Amino acid sequence: MPRYRLLIAYDGTDFHGWQRQEPPDREPLRTVQGVLEEAVAVVTGSRVPVVGASRTDAGVHAIGQVAAFTSETRVPVEKLPLAINARLPADVRVRAAALAHDRFDPISDCVSKCYRYTIRHSDRGLGGEDLFVRRTIWNTWHRLDADAMRSTAAALVGTHDFAAFAQVNHGRESTVRTIHGCTVLSPSPGLAVLEVAGSGFLYNMVRIIAGTLVEAGRGKLGAEDVRRALTTGDRTVTGPTLPPHGLRLEWVRYGATET
Amino acid sequence: MPRYRLLIAYDGTDFHGWQRQEPPDREPLRTVQGVLEEAVAVVTGSRVPVVGASRTDAGVHAIGQVAAFTSETRVPVEKLPLAINARLPADVRVRAAALAHDRFDPISDCVSKCYRYTIRHSDRGLGGEDLFVRRTIWNTWHRLDADAMRSTAAALVGTHDFAAFAQVNHGRESTVRTIHGCTVLSPSPGLAVLEVAGSGFLYNMVRIIAGTLVEAGRGKLGAEDVRRALTTGDRTVTGPTLPPHGLRLEWVRYGATET
Repeated sequence: MPRYRLLIAYDGTDFHGWQRQEPPDREPLRTVQGVLEEAVAVVTGSRVPVVGASRTDAGVHAIGQVAAFTSETRVPVEKLPLAINARLPADVRVRAAALAHDRFDPISDCVSKCYRYTIRHSDRGLGGEDLFVRRTIWNTWHRLDADAMRSTAAALVGTHDFAAFAQVNHGRESTVRTIHGCTVLSPSPGLAVLEVAGSGFLYNMVRIIAGTLVEAGRGKLGAEDVRRALTTGDRTVTGPTLPPHGLRLEWVRYGATET
Repeated sequence: MPRYRLLIAYDGTDFHGWQRQEPPDREPLRTVQGVLEEAVAVVTGSRVPVVGASRTDAGVHAIGQVAAFTSETRVPVEKLPLAINARLPADVRVRAAALAHDRFDPISDCVSKCYRYTIRHSDRGLGGEDLFVRRTIWNTWHRLDADAMRSTAAALVGTHDFAAFAQVNHGRESTVRTIHGCTVLSPSPGLAVLEVAGSGFLYNMVRIIAGTLVEAGRGKLGAEDVRRALTTGDRTVTGPTLPPHGLRLEWVRYGATET
């Protein structure tokens, strides 16, 4: 049966995260997977699982989420985005659809993915133009030194044990991951955009990396502390977990057979 | 008593417009003026009217609204934005505060103001980055010709009778207004930003101008039709009233004594 791959964007503000949640004793929660499976069911005529590459948390956004489903729909693949979008609420959009190979698995076939965390550091808060993007920017009243953040970020790149950058009780056997790149952009004064690409991430890992780089920007810690955290696995050395709304899934990449 | 002038931004999505509305038989509606007067009362210790330059409609945004109030507060003027913002919901912000002359009237002292209307014209709808600003962009599925919009916009500039660009029952005696400038920007493919500056505007005037320029962009009317509408006052010649959420008050200007 044909398998389809979707490129998806969503504003996570009003979702309880990606993953479908149907508590036995009450109404299902509003999730991205939930509304997508409903729209796909209407368009294709059969209810099938829509599997996402990343199970983003409540409040986290995506512009490049990848998901897949299997269907014998007669809707041509190039018409799928329009057809599914017509059945979706305005805060989630299918950006593109393509045929994938039969056993394409968005989770285990993934080669790398990239998250972005956006920070306004200003003693005036989110005023002016920021007001209109306040649901995707986290604000701190402290001034941040972008160069200090960059030199600390560089210490994260490579294959390390990221136990100190995972929420306790993360439920994963191995905490070894590879970070391909960690950059700090300063597109305008008072704005810091962190981009972290890697093979995979532990629970809350990007939000803890962002919190650690904010501490670095304030001069509270540096590359030495990050190296120590990677060696010891000590969560108390790393920074706080920043709130979800500054986080966005940018892209997910697959191997040569799936590009 | 000292009079204060505030520069204000708000996301109009969740407000019933600027003007305070207290229906006798039910709860007051959530308005920008309402939440501002409440915050100013807490900060200054007395409940006073906060008068805005423009009574924007439900759903309309502002980044440069000007408002004024009179108070004997002992809070220093430079601390007012922070103090008031601490009492305001996240969708309205005081950007600046200054002392004004005793009888400063934000409405009648106004020399000119400028509105912006933002349009995505794309056969793919509001996907990708647009998703995160969808509450401030109006989407049309028709392709628009920016040059045709510009030549039609030019016919609006000057002092004219704008009866054909006002909602019927606008409640104003004179429909003569002066448009200082009307420009159509194309910052990126598929995006059209209209900016209209003038001495004052009739009810729904900017949204009807935007609707008329969209018709021009589709080749449905041109500068000749606009000239005819200005001469005849015929509302059926002009375009539809576009929805409020694409509209934003950009700035309000005052004379030499108030700058």
